[in-house]
Amino acid sequence: MPAAKDPANAIGPAIILVEPQLGENIGMVARAMANFGLSELRLVNPRDGWPSEKARAAASRADHVIDATKVFDDLASAVADLNFVFATTARERDGFKPVRGPVEAGRALRARGQAGLRTGILFGRERFGLYNDEVGLADEIVTFPVDPSFSSLNIAQAVLLMSYEWMKSGLAEETATNFSGPELVPATKEQLHSLFTYLEGALEARGYFRPEEKKPKMVDNLRAVLTRAGFAEPELKVLRGIISSLDRFSPAMPRGDGSPGDDPRRLPAARKRAADKES
Amino acid sequence: MPAAKDPANAIGPAIILVEPQLGENIGMVARAMANFGLSELRLVNPRDGWPSEKARAAASRADHVIDATKVFDDLASAVADLNFVFATTARERDGFKPVRGPVEAGRALRARGQAGLRTGILFGRERFGLYNDEVGLADEIVTFPVDPSFSSLNIAQAVLLMSYEWMKSGLAEETATNFSGPELVPATKEQLHSLFTYLEGALEARGYFRPEEKKPKMVDNLRAVLTRAGFAEPELKVLRGIISSLDRFSPAMPRGDGSPGDDPRRLPAARKRAADKES
Repeated sequence: MPAAKDPANAIGPAIILVEPQLGENIGMVARAMANFGLSELRLVNPRDGWPSEKARAAASRADHVIDATKVFDDLASAVADLNFVFATTARERDGFKPVRGPVEAGRALRARGQAGLRTGILFGRERFGLYNDEVGLADEIVTFPVDPSFSSLNIAQAVLLMSYEWMKSGLAEETATNFSGPELVPATKEQLHSLFTYLEGALEARGYFRPEEKKPKMVDNLRAVLTRAGFAEPELKVLRGIISSLDRFSPAMPRGDGSPGDDPRRLPAARKRAADKES
Repeated sequence: MPAAKDPANAIGPAIILVEPQLGENIGMVARAMANFGLSELRLVNPRDGWPSEKARAAASRADHVIDATKVFDDLASAVADLNFVFATTARERDGFKPVRGPVEAGRALRARGQAGLRTGILFGRERFGLYNDEVGLADEIVTFPVDPSFSSLNIAQAVLLMSYEWMKSGLAEETATNFSGPELVPATKEQLHSLFTYLEGALEARGYFRPEEKKPKMVDNLRAVLTRAGFAEPELKVLRGIISSLDRFSPAMPRGDGSPGDDPRRLPAARKRAADKES
Protein backbone atom coordinates (compact mmCIF):
# COMPACT_ATOMS: atom_id res chain seq x y z
CA MET A 1 0.00 0.00 0.00
CA PRO A 2 1.60 3.30 -1.00
CA ALA A 3 1.85 5.52 2.01
CA ALA A 4 0.64 8.97 1.05
CA LYS A 5 2.51 11.58 3.00
CA ASP A 6 -0.71 13.13 4.22
CA PRO A 7 -3.77 11.52 2.65
CA ALA A 8 -6.13 13.70 4.67
CA ASN A 9 -4.72 16.99 3.46
CA ALA A 10 -3.78 16.04 -0.05
CA ILE A 11 -6.17 18.18 -2.10
CA GLY A 12 -5.52 17.34 -5.72
CA PRO A 13 -5.59 19.69 -8.66
CA ALA A 14 -8.79 20.32 -10.61
CA ILE A 15 -8.54 18.97 -14.17
CA ILE A 16 -9.86 21.60 -16.60
CA LEU A 17 -10.65 20.59 -20.19
CA VAL A 18 -11.02 23.52 -22.57
CA GLU A 19 -13.65 22.90 -25.28
CA PRO A 20 -13.33 19.11 -25.35
CA GLN A 21 -15.06 17.60 -28.37
CA LEU A 22 -15.69 13.91 -27.73
CA GLY A 23 -17.63 12.49 -24.80
CA GLU A 24 -15.43 9.37 -24.98
CA ASN A 25 -12.37 11.48 -24.30
CA ILE A 26 -14.01 13.16 -21.33
CA GLY A 27 -14.90 9.73 -19.96
CA MET A 28 -11.36 8.44 -20.41
CA VAL A 29 -10.11 11.54 -18.61
CA ALA A 30 -12.41 10.75 -15.67
CA ARG A 31 -11.16 7.16 -15.60
CA ALA A 32 -7.54 8.29 -15.68
CA MET A 33 -8.16 10.73 -12.83
CA ALA A 34 -9.95 8.17 -10.65
CA ASN A 35 -7.11 5.68 -10.96
CA PHE A 36 -4.79 8.18 -9.36
CA GLY A 37 -7.07 9.70 -6.77
CA LEU A 38 -8.23 12.87 -8.53
CA SER A 39 -11.92 13.70 -8.64
CA GLU A 40 -12.53 17.31 -9.66
CA LEU A 41 -13.25 17.69 -13.37
CA ARG A 42 -14.20 21.00 -15.00
CA LEU A 43 -15.28 21.49 -18.61
CA VAL A 44 -15.19 24.75 -20.53
CA ASN A 45 -17.79 24.69 -23.32
CA PRO A 46 -17.84 20.98 -24.15
CA ARG A 47 -18.83 20.77 -27.83
CA ASP A 48 -21.51 18.13 -27.43
CA GLY A 49 -22.97 19.49 -24.19
CA TRP A 50 -23.19 17.97 -20.77
CA PRO A 51 -24.12 15.50 -19.31
CA SER A 52 -22.87 12.95 -21.82
CA GLU A 53 -23.77 9.27 -21.83
CA LYS A 54 -20.72 8.55 -23.98
CA ALA A 55 -18.55 10.11 -21.31
CA ARG A 56 -20.17 8.03 -18.59
CA ALA A 57 -19.70 4.82 -20.56
CA ALA A 58 -16.04 5.55 -21.26
CA ALA A 59 -15.40 6.47 -17.62
CA SER A 60 -15.65 2.81 -16.66
CA ARG A 61 -17.35 3.28 -13.29
CA ALA A 62 -15.63 6.55 -12.38
CA ASP A 63 -19.16 7.81 -11.80
CA HIS A 64 -18.14 9.95 -8.85
CA VAL A 65 -15.98 12.03 -11.19
CA ILE A 66 -18.64 12.27 -13.90
CA ASP A 67 -21.38 13.18 -11.41
CA ALA A 68 -19.33 15.99 -9.89
CA THR A 69 -18.16 17.48 -13.19
CA LYS A 70 -18.82 21.21 -13.51
CA VAL A 71 -19.34 23.11 -16.75
CA PHE A 72 -18.20 26.70 -17.35
CA ASP A 73 -18.83 29.20 -20.13
CA ASP A 74 -15.31 30.51 -20.22
CA LEU A 75 -11.88 29.60 -18.94
CA ALA A 76 -11.55 32.60 -16.64
CA SER A 77 -14.63 31.43 -14.71
CA ALA A 78 -13.31 27.89 -14.59
CA VAL A 79 -10.10 28.98 -12.84
CA ALA A 80 -11.59 31.82 -10.81
CA ASP A 81 -11.32 30.09 -7.41
CA LEU A 82 -7.87 28.60 -7.99
CA ASN A 83 -4.59 29.93 -6.59
CA PHE A 84 -2.17 28.23 -8.95
CA VAL A 85 -2.67 26.85 -12.45
CA PHE A 86 -0.54 24.85 -14.87
CA ALA A 87 -1.21 24.87 -18.62
CA THR A 88 -0.23 21.76 -20.59
CA THR A 89 1.23 22.39 -24.00
CA ALA A 90 3.21 20.36 -26.49
CA ARG A 91 4.84 23.31 -28.20
CA GLU A 92 7.00 26.17 -27.09
CA ARG A 93 5.30 29.49 -26.37
CA ASP A 94 6.66 32.97 -26.20
CA GLY A 95 6.47 34.63 -22.86
CA PHE A 96 7.61 34.59 -19.33
CA LYS A 97 6.10 31.30 -18.15
CA PRO A 98 8.41 28.81 -16.48
CA VAL A 99 8.28 25.38 -18.17
CA ARG A 100 8.21 22.22 -16.05
CA GLY A 101 8.28 18.50 -16.70
CA PRO A 102 5.50 16.32 -15.25
CA VAL A 103 7.54 15.12 -12.25
CA GLU A 104 8.36 18.62 -11.14
CA ALA A 105 4.80 19.77 -11.84
CA GLY A 106 3.34 16.91 -9.79
CA ARG A 107 5.51 17.89 -6.85
CA ALA A 108 4.67 21.58 -7.23
CA LEU A 109 0.95 20.81 -7.21
CA ARG A 110 1.32 18.54 -4.18
CA ALA A 111 3.29 21.15 -2.25
CA ARG A 112 0.75 23.88 -2.98
CA GLY A 113 -2.16 21.60 -2.16
CA GLN A 114 -0.55 20.77 1.17
CA ALA A 115 -0.17 24.48 1.83
CA GLY A 116 -3.93 24.85 1.43
CA LEU A 117 -3.89 26.39 -2.07
CA ARG A 118 -6.35 25.31 -4.74
CA THR A 119 -4.65 24.22 -7.93
CA GLY A 120 -5.61 23.20 -11.45
CA ILE A 121 -4.23 21.92 -14.73
CA LEU A 122 -5.48 23.14 -18.13
CA PHE A 123 -5.74 20.77 -21.08
CA GLY A 124 -6.53 22.10 -24.54
CA ARG A 125 -8.70 20.97 -27.42
CA GLU A 126 -8.12 17.61 -29.09
CA ARG A 127 -6.94 19.22 -32.32
CA PHE A 128 -4.86 22.21 -31.41
CA GLY A 129 -4.54 22.54 -27.67
CA LEU A 130 -4.74 25.89 -25.92
CA TYR A 131 -4.67 29.36 -27.44
CA ASN A 132 -1.89 31.63 -26.25
CA ASP A 133 -4.27 33.83 -24.29
CA GLU A 134 -5.53 30.71 -22.49
CA VAL A 135 -1.98 29.69 -21.61
CA GLY A 136 -1.67 33.25 -20.39
CA LEU A 137 -4.21 32.53 -17.66
CA ALA A 138 -1.91 29.91 -16.15
CA ASP A 139 1.03 30.47 -13.84
CA GLU A 140 3.38 27.93 -15.38
CA ILE A 141 3.60 25.50 -18.28
CA VAL A 142 3.95 21.74 -18.08
CA THR A 143 5.05 19.69 -21.07
CA PHE A 144 5.72 15.98 -21.57
CA PRO A 145 9.04 14.43 -22.59
CA VAL A 146 7.60 12.88 -25.76
CA ASP A 147 9.62 11.75 -28.74
CA PRO A 148 9.95 14.95 -30.80
CA SER A 149 9.49 12.90 -33.97
CA PHE A 150 6.13 11.51 -32.80
CA SER A 151 4.38 13.87 -30.48
CA SER A 152 0.72 12.93 -30.37
CA LEU A 153 -0.68 12.52 -26.86
CA ASN A 154 -4.44 12.82 -26.68
CA ILE A 155 -6.04 14.66 -23.77
CA ALA A 156 -6.88 11.50 -21.85
CA GLN A 157 -3.26 10.34 -22.13
CA ALA A 158 -1.99 13.73 -20.99
CA VAL A 159 -4.41 13.74 -18.04
CA LEU A 160 -3.34 10.19 -17.16
CA LEU A 161 0.33 11.17 -17.00
CA MET A 162 -0.32 14.23 -14.84
CA SER A 163 -2.67 12.30 -12.53
CA TYR A 164 -0.05 9.58 -12.19
CA GLU A 165 2.68 12.08 -11.35
CA TRP A 166 0.43 13.76 -8.86
CA MET A 167 -0.20 10.43 -7.11
CA LYS A 168 3.51 9.60 -7.22
CA SER A 169 4.38 12.91 -5.62
CA GLY A 170 2.48 11.73 -2.56
CA LEU A 171 4.27 8.41 -2.20
CA ALA A 172 6.69 8.15 0.67
CA GLU A 173 9.14 6.63 -1.81
CA GLU A 174 9.20 6.78 -5.56
CA THR A 175 9.57 3.02 -5.70
CA ALA A 176 6.59 2.29 -3.43
CA THR A 177 4.13 -0.26 -4.80
CA ASN A 178 0.60 -1.26 -3.78
CA PHE A 179 1.81 -4.75 -2.88
CA SER A 180 5.21 -6.32 -2.45
CA GLY A 181 6.96 -9.41 -3.56
CA PRO A 182 8.29 -11.80 -0.92
CA GLU A 183 11.23 -10.61 1.12
CA LEU A 184 13.84 -12.62 -0.73
CA VAL A 185 16.96 -11.92 1.24
CA PRO A 186 19.78 -14.37 0.67
CA ALA A 187 19.68 -17.26 3.13
CA THR A 188 22.40 -17.65 5.72
CA LYS A 189 25.52 -19.52 4.69
CA GLU A 190 24.64 -22.31 7.08
CA GLN A 191 21.39 -22.86 5.20
CA LEU A 192 23.18 -22.75 1.86
CA HIS A 193 25.95 -25.10 3.01
CA SER A 194 23.36 -27.53 4.27
CA LEU A 195 22.01 -27.72 0.71
CA PHE A 196 25.55 -28.25 -0.62
CA THR A 197 26.07 -31.14 1.79
CA TYR A 198 22.79 -32.74 0.87
CA LEU A 199 23.21 -32.31 -2.89
CA GLU A 200 26.83 -33.38 -2.95
CA GLY A 201 25.96 -36.46 -0.93
CA ALA A 202 23.26 -37.41 -3.43
CA LEU A 203 25.58 -36.79 -6.37
CA GLU A 204 28.43 -38.70 -4.74
CA ALA A 205 26.15 -41.70 -4.33
CA ARG A 206 25.31 -41.56 -8.05
CA GLY A 207 28.92 -41.34 -9.10
CA TYR A 208 28.64 -37.78 -10.41
CA PHE A 209 32.13 -36.82 -9.22
CA ARG A 210 34.22 -38.78 -11.66
CA PRO A 211 37.07 -38.99 -12.22
CA GLU A 212 37.86 -38.65 -8.53
CA GLU A 213 40.68 -36.14 -9.05
CA LYS A 214 38.27 -33.70 -10.68
CA LYS A 215 35.91 -33.77 -7.73
CA PRO A 216 37.30 -30.67 -5.99
CA LYS A 217 36.89 -28.56 -9.14
CA MET A 218 33.41 -29.97 -9.78
CA VAL A 219 32.38 -29.14 -6.22
CA ASP A 220 33.77 -25.64 -6.61
CA ASN A 221 31.75 -25.06 -9.76
CA LEU A 222 28.55 -26.45 -8.32
CA ARG A 223 28.85 -24.30 -5.22
CA ALA A 224 29.70 -21.22 -7.29
CA VAL A 225 26.55 -21.62 -9.41
CA LEU A 226 24.32 -22.07 -6.38
CA THR A 227 25.97 -19.20 -4.52
CA ARG A 228 25.75 -16.58 -7.26
CA ALA A 229 21.97 -16.86 -7.47
CA GLY A 230 21.69 -15.57 -3.90
CA PHE A 231 18.85 -17.95 -3.03
CA ALA A 232 16.60 -17.10 -0.12
CA GLU A 233 15.65 -19.70 2.48
CA PRO A 234 12.26 -20.54 0.92
CA GLU A 235 13.96 -20.98 -2.43
CA LEU A 236 16.52 -23.34 -0.88
CA LYS A 237 13.59 -25.39 0.41
CA VAL A 238 12.16 -25.62 -3.09
CA LEU A 239 15.55 -26.75 -4.41
CA ARG A 240 15.93 -29.31 -1.64
CA GLY A 241 12.51 -30.70 -2.53
CA ILE A 242 13.51 -30.94 -6.18
CA ILE A 243 16.76 -32.71 -5.40
CA SER A 244 15.00 -35.01 -2.96
CA SER A 245 12.44 -35.95 -5.56
CA LEU A 246 15.00 -36.53 -8.31
CA ASP A 247 17.11 -38.52 -5.90
CA ARG A 248 14.36 -40.88 -4.86
CA PHE A 249 12.63 -41.83 -8.07
CA SER A 250 15.49 -42.29 -10.48
CA PRO A 251 15.12 -44.34 -13.64
CA ALA A 252 17.37 -46.90 -11.97
CA MET A 253 14.94 -47.14 -9.06
CA PRO A 254 11.51 -46.24 -10.34
CA ARG A 255 8.51 -44.95 -8.40
CA GLY A 256 6.73 -47.70 -6.55
CA ASP A 257 9.28 -48.62 -3.92
CA GLY A 258 6.81 -47.61 -1.28
CA SER A 259 8.64 -44.59 0.04
CA PRO A 260 6.04 -41.95 0.94
CA GLY A 261 6.01 -38.19 0.52
CA ASP A 262 9.16 -36.20 0.57
CA ASP A 263 10.27 -36.48 4.16
CA PRO A 264 13.92 -35.58 3.92
CA ARG A 265 14.71 -37.80 6.90
CA ARG A 266 14.01 -40.80 4.71
CA LEU A 267 16.29 -39.68 1.96
CA PRO A 268 19.66 -41.08 2.91
CA ALA A 269 18.29 -44.60 2.79
CA ALA A 270 16.55 -44.06 -0.51
CA ARG A 271 19.66 -42.54 -1.94
CA LYS A 272 21.79 -45.36 -0.70
CA ARG A 273 19.57 -47.89 -2.42
CA ALA A 274 19.68 -45.99 -5.67
CA ALA A 275 23.41 -45.70 -5.45
CA ASP A 276 23.75 -49.41 -4.85
CA LYS A 277 21.91 -50.17 -8.05
CA GLU A 278 23.79 -47.66 -10.18
CA SER A 279 27.28 -48.46 -9.13
CA MET B 1 15.37 18.83 -25.94
CA PRO B 2 15.75 15.96 -23.49
CA ALA B 3 19.23 14.57 -23.71
CA ALA B 4 18.96 10.79 -23.83
CA LYS B 5 21.96 9.29 -22.10
CA ASP B 6 22.80 7.19 -25.14
CA PRO B 7 20.16 7.47 -27.82
CA ALA B 8 22.08 5.24 -30.18
CA ASN B 9 22.23 2.27 -27.82
CA ALA B 10 18.91 2.63 -26.11
CA ILE B 11 17.05 -0.46 -27.28
CA GLY B 12 13.61 -0.28 -25.75
CA PRO B 13 11.51 -3.14 -24.43
CA ALA B 14 9.14 -5.06 -26.68
CA ILE B 15 5.51 -4.50 -25.65
CA ILE B 16 3.69 -7.84 -25.57
CA LEU B 17 -0.11 -7.91 -25.43
CA VAL B 18 -1.57 -11.27 -24.43
CA GLU B 19 -4.88 -12.00 -26.18
CA PRO B 20 -5.97 -8.40 -26.67
CA GLN B 21 -9.60 -8.11 -27.70
CA LEU B 22 -10.21 -4.71 -29.26
CA GLY B 23 -8.36 -3.31 -32.25
CA GLU B 24 -8.91 0.18 -30.82
CA ASN B 25 -6.94 -0.76 -27.74
CA ILE B 26 -4.09 -2.16 -29.80
CA GLY B 27 -4.03 1.08 -31.77
CA MET B 28 -3.97 3.21 -28.63
CA VAL B 29 -1.12 1.04 -27.36
CA ALA B 30 0.84 1.76 -30.55
CA ARG B 31 0.16 5.48 -30.19
CA ALA B 32 1.28 5.45 -26.55
CA MET B 33 4.49 3.60 -27.47
CA ALA B 34 5.36 5.94 -30.33
CA ASN B 35 5.03 9.02 -28.14
CA PHE B 36 7.79 7.68 -25.95
CA GLY B 37 10.09 6.18 -28.52
CA LEU B 38 9.08 2.50 -28.39
CA SER B 39 8.34 0.64 -31.60
CA GLU B 40 8.28 -3.11 -31.09
CA LEU B 41 4.76 -4.46 -30.53
CA ARG B 42 3.98 -8.19 -30.23
CA LEU B 43 0.53 -9.72 -30.03
CA VAL B 44 -0.30 -13.16 -28.66
CA ASN B 45 -3.54 -14.44 -30.25
CA PRO B 46 -5.39 -11.16 -30.83
CA ARG B 47 -9.08 -12.04 -30.66
CA ASP B 48 -10.10 -10.23 -33.84
CA GLY B 49 -7.08 -11.25 -35.88
CA TRP B 50 -4.38 -9.14 -37.47
CA PRO B 51 -3.97 -6.80 -39.30
CA SER B 52 -6.72 -4.59 -37.92
CA GLU B 53 -7.99 -1.42 -39.55
CA LYS B 54 -9.47 -0.32 -36.22
CA ALA B 55 -6.03 -0.59 -34.68
CA ARG B 56 -4.48 1.48 -37.44
CA ALA B 57 -7.14 4.17 -37.11
CA ALA B 58 -6.70 4.39 -33.32
CA ALA B 59 -2.91 4.49 -33.65
CA SER B 60 -3.12 8.05 -34.97
CA ARG B 61 -0.25 7.83 -37.47
CA ALA B 62 1.91 5.47 -35.43
CA ASP B 63 1.99 3.41 -38.62
CA HIS B 64 5.58 2.36 -38.12
CA VAL B 65 4.52 0.52 -34.94
CA ILE B 66 1.43 -1.05 -36.54
CA ASP B 67 3.35 -2.15 -39.66
CA ALA B 68 6.07 -3.85 -37.61
CA THR B 69 3.71 -5.62 -35.19
CA LYS B 70 4.34 -9.37 -34.93
CA VAL B 71 1.73 -11.98 -34.01
CA PHE B 72 2.49 -15.15 -32.01
CA ASP B 73 0.47 -18.27 -31.22
CA ASP B 74 1.62 -18.49 -27.62
CA LEU B 75 3.35 -16.39 -25.03
CA ALA B 76 6.45 -18.59 -24.79
CA SER B 77 7.15 -17.97 -28.48
CA ALA B 78 6.54 -14.25 -28.04
CA VAL B 79 9.26 -13.98 -25.38
CA ALA B 80 11.61 -16.64 -26.77
CA ASP B 81 14.31 -14.20 -27.93
CA LEU B 82 14.18 -11.95 -24.86
CA ASN B 83 16.62 -11.95 -21.95
CA PHE B 84 14.52 -10.19 -19.35
CA VAL B 85 10.77 -9.81 -19.05
CA PHE B 86 8.45 -7.85 -16.75
CA ALA B 87 4.82 -8.87 -16.22
CA THR B 88 2.33 -6.11 -15.39
CA THR B 89 -0.31 -7.01 -12.86
CA ALA B 90 -2.75 -5.08 -10.71
CA ARG B 91 -3.09 -7.76 -8.04
CA GLU B 92 -0.73 -9.59 -5.77
CA ARG B 93 0.50 -13.01 -6.87
CA ASP B 94 2.00 -15.84 -4.90
CA GLY B 95 5.52 -16.70 -5.75
CA PHE B 96 9.08 -15.60 -5.77
CA LYS B 97 8.85 -12.70 -8.24
CA PRO B 98 10.22 -9.35 -7.12
CA VAL B 99 7.64 -6.55 -7.46
CA ARG B 100 8.68 -3.15 -8.84
CA GLY B 101 7.02 0.21 -9.37
CA PRO B 102 7.08 1.76 -12.84
CA VAL B 103 9.99 4.11 -12.13
CA GLU B 104 12.22 1.30 -10.95
CA ALA B 105 11.06 -0.94 -13.80
CA GLY B 106 11.81 1.76 -16.38
CA ARG B 107 15.33 2.10 -15.06
CA ALA B 108 15.84 -1.67 -14.92
CA LEU B 109 14.75 -2.00 -18.56
CA ARG B 110 17.00 0.87 -19.60
CA ALA B 111 20.02 -0.60 -17.81
CA ARG B 112 19.53 -4.03 -19.35
CA GLY B 113 18.93 -2.54 -22.80
CA GLN B 114 22.16 -0.59 -22.49
CA ALA B 115 23.94 -3.82 -21.56
CA GLY B 116 22.77 -5.30 -24.85
CA LEU B 117 19.99 -7.48 -23.42
CA ARG B 118 16.62 -7.75 -25.14
CA THR B 119 13.73 -6.93 -22.83
CA GLY B 120 9.96 -7.02 -22.87
CA ILE B 121 6.87 -6.14 -20.85
CA LEU B 122 3.77 -8.37 -20.72
CA PHE B 123 0.29 -6.86 -20.58
CA GLY B 124 -2.73 -9.07 -19.96
CA ARG B 125 -6.24 -9.26 -21.35
CA GLU B 126 -8.63 -6.31 -21.03
CA ARG B 127 -10.86 -8.17 -18.60
CA PHE B 128 -8.67 -10.18 -16.31
CA GLY B 129 -5.04 -9.59 -17.08
CA LEU B 130 -2.50 -12.41 -17.08
CA TYR B 131 -2.88 -15.96 -15.82
CA ASN B 132 -0.47 -17.03 -13.11
CA ASP B 133 1.43 -19.33 -15.45
CA GLU B 134 1.88 -16.38 -17.82
CA VAL B 135 3.25 -14.23 -15.00
CA GLY B 136 5.50 -17.21 -14.33
CA LEU B 137 7.21 -16.67 -17.69
CA ALA B 138 8.40 -13.23 -16.56
CA ASP B 139 11.40 -12.40 -14.41
CA GLU B 140 9.80 -9.72 -12.32
CA ILE B 141 6.46 -8.01 -11.75
CA VAL B 142 5.64 -4.36 -12.29
CA THR B 143 2.54 -2.77 -10.80
CA PHE B 144 1.17 0.79 -10.83
CA PRO B 145 0.56 2.96 -7.78
CA VAL B 146 -3.18 3.32 -8.49
CA ASP B 147 -5.78 4.30 -5.93
CA PRO B 148 -6.71 0.96 -4.30
CA SER B 149 -10.36 2.08 -4.21
CA PHE B 150 -10.46 2.67 -7.98
CA SER B 151 -8.03 0.47 -9.82
CA SER B 152 -9.06 0.32 -13.45
CA LEU B 153 -6.25 1.05 -15.88
CA ASN B 154 -6.87 -0.27 -19.37
CA ILE B 155 -4.03 -1.82 -21.33
CA ALA B 156 -3.36 1.32 -23.39
CA GLN B 157 -3.09 3.36 -20.19
CA ALA B 158 -0.76 0.81 -18.62
CA VAL B 159 1.40 0.75 -21.76
CA LEU B 160 1.44 4.56 -21.79
CA LEU B 161 2.76 4.72 -18.22
CA MET B 162 5.48 2.13 -18.83
CA SER B 163 6.51 3.75 -22.12
CA TYR B 164 6.66 7.12 -20.37
CA GLU B 165 8.81 5.74 -17.56
CA TRP B 166 11.08 4.06 -20.07
CA MET B 167 11.57 7.38 -21.89
CA LYS B 168 12.13 9.19 -18.60
CA SER B 169 14.78 6.70 -17.54
CA GLY B 170 16.84 7.92 -20.50
CA LEU B 171 16.64 11.59 -19.65
CA ALA B 172 19.81 13.15 -18.32
CA GLU B 173 17.65 14.72 -15.62
CA GLU B 174 14.20 13.80 -14.43
CA THR B 175 13.10 17.40 -14.83
CA ALA B 176 14.30 17.72 -18.43
CA THR B 177 11.73 19.11 -20.86
CA ASN B 178 11.56 19.24 -24.66
CA PHE B 179 11.67 23.01 -24.58
CA SER B 180 12.44 25.55 -21.90
CA GLY B 181 10.95 28.70 -20.60
CA PRO B 182 13.05 31.84 -20.65
CA GLU B 183 15.96 31.99 -18.24
CA LEU B 184 14.27 34.20 -15.71
CA VAL B 185 17.00 34.82 -13.20
CA PRO B 186 16.43 37.78 -10.95
CA ALA B 187 17.90 40.96 -12.38
CA THR B 188 20.82 42.64 -10.67
CA LYS B 189 20.04 45.05 -7.89
CA GLU B 190 21.32 47.92 -10.02
CA GLN B 191 18.67 47.12 -12.64
CA LEU B 192 15.98 46.83 -9.97
CA HIS B 193 17.03 50.03 -8.25
CA SER B 194 16.98 51.85 -11.56
CA LEU B 195 13.29 50.91 -11.84
CA PHE B 196 12.68 52.14 -8.29
CA THR B 197 14.26 55.47 -9.13
CA TYR B 198 12.25 55.84 -12.29
CA LEU B 199 8.94 54.80 -10.73
CA GLU B 200 9.41 56.83 -7.59
CA GLY B 201 10.25 59.89 -9.68
CA ALA B 202 7.06 59.48 -11.67
CA LEU B 203 4.99 58.96 -8.53
CA GLU B 204 6.62 61.91 -6.80
CA ALA B 205 5.70 64.15 -9.71
CA ARG B 206 2.07 63.01 -9.39
CA GLY B 207 1.91 63.63 -5.68
CA TYR B 208 1.60 59.95 -4.76
CA PHE B 209 3.76 60.29 -1.65
CA ARG B 210 1.39 62.24 0.54
CA PRO B 211 1.43 63.11 3.34
CA GLU B 212 5.14 63.79 3.10
CA GLU B 213 5.94 62.16 6.46
CA LYS B 214 4.57 58.84 5.19
CA LYS B 215 6.80 58.83 2.15
CA PRO B 216 9.59 56.69 3.65
CA LYS B 217 7.14 53.95 4.62
CA MET B 218 5.38 54.13 1.27
CA VAL B 219 8.71 53.83 -0.54
CA ASP B 220 9.63 50.86 1.65
CA ASN B 221 6.39 49.08 0.80
CA LEU B 222 6.64 49.77 -2.89
CA ARG B 223 10.21 48.49 -3.00
CA ALA B 224 9.31 45.41 -0.96
CA VAL B 225 6.52 44.44 -3.36
CA LEU B 226 8.72 44.83 -6.41
CA THR B 227 11.62 43.02 -4.76
CA ARG B 228 9.74 39.94 -3.58
CA ALA B 229 8.62 39.06 -7.11
CA GLY B 230 12.25 38.53 -8.11
CA PHE B 231 11.76 40.12 -11.54
CA ALA B 232 14.23 39.28 -14.27
CA GLU B 233 15.74 41.95 -16.50
CA PRO B 234 13.28 41.45 -19.39
CA GLU B 235 10.41 41.67 -16.93
CA LEU B 236 11.79 44.92 -15.55
CA LYS B 237 11.79 46.25 -19.10
CA VAL B 238 8.11 45.35 -19.46
CA LEU B 239 7.34 47.09 -16.18
CA ARG B 240 9.33 50.16 -17.20
CA GLY B 241 7.35 50.31 -20.45
CA ILE B 242 4.08 50.06 -18.54
CA ILE B 243 5.07 52.82 -16.13
CA SER B 244 6.33 54.93 -18.98
CA SER B 245 3.07 54.55 -20.83
CA LEU B 246 0.90 55.31 -17.80
CA ASP B 247 3.08 58.26 -16.99
CA ARG B 248 2.85 59.83 -20.38
CA PHE B 249 -0.82 59.62 -21.28
CA SER B 250 -2.54 60.41 -18.05
CA PRO B 251 -6.15 61.59 -17.96
CA ALA B 252 -4.74 64.94 -16.98
CA MET B 253 -2.64 65.03 -20.12
CA PRO B 254 -4.36 62.90 -22.74
CA ARG B 255 -2.83 61.20 -25.76
CA GLY B 256 -2.17 63.58 -28.57
CA ASP B 257 0.65 65.67 -27.17
CA GLY B 258 2.85 64.44 -30.00
CA SER B 259 5.28 62.45 -27.94
CA PRO B 260 6.19 59.36 -29.96
CA GLY B 261 6.66 55.74 -29.02
CA ASP B 262 8.01 54.72 -25.70
CA ASP B 263 11.58 55.89 -25.87
CA PRO B 264 12.45 56.08 -22.19
CA ARG B 265 14.87 58.95 -22.84
CA ARG B 266 11.90 61.18 -23.59
CA LEU B 267 10.07 60.32 -20.42
CA PRO B 268 11.35 62.83 -17.87
CA ALA B 269 10.03 65.71 -19.96
CA ALA B 270 6.64 64.05 -20.50
CA ARG B 271 6.34 63.26 -16.84
CA LYS B 272 7.25 66.77 -15.90
CA ARG B 273 4.49 68.19 -18.08
CA ALA B 274 1.90 65.86 -16.60
CA ALA B 275 3.02 66.72 -13.11
CA ASP B 276 2.74 70.39 -13.84
CA LYS B 277 -0.87 70.02 -14.83
CA GLU B 278 -1.83 67.86 -11.90
CA SER B 279 -0.27 69.79 -9.13
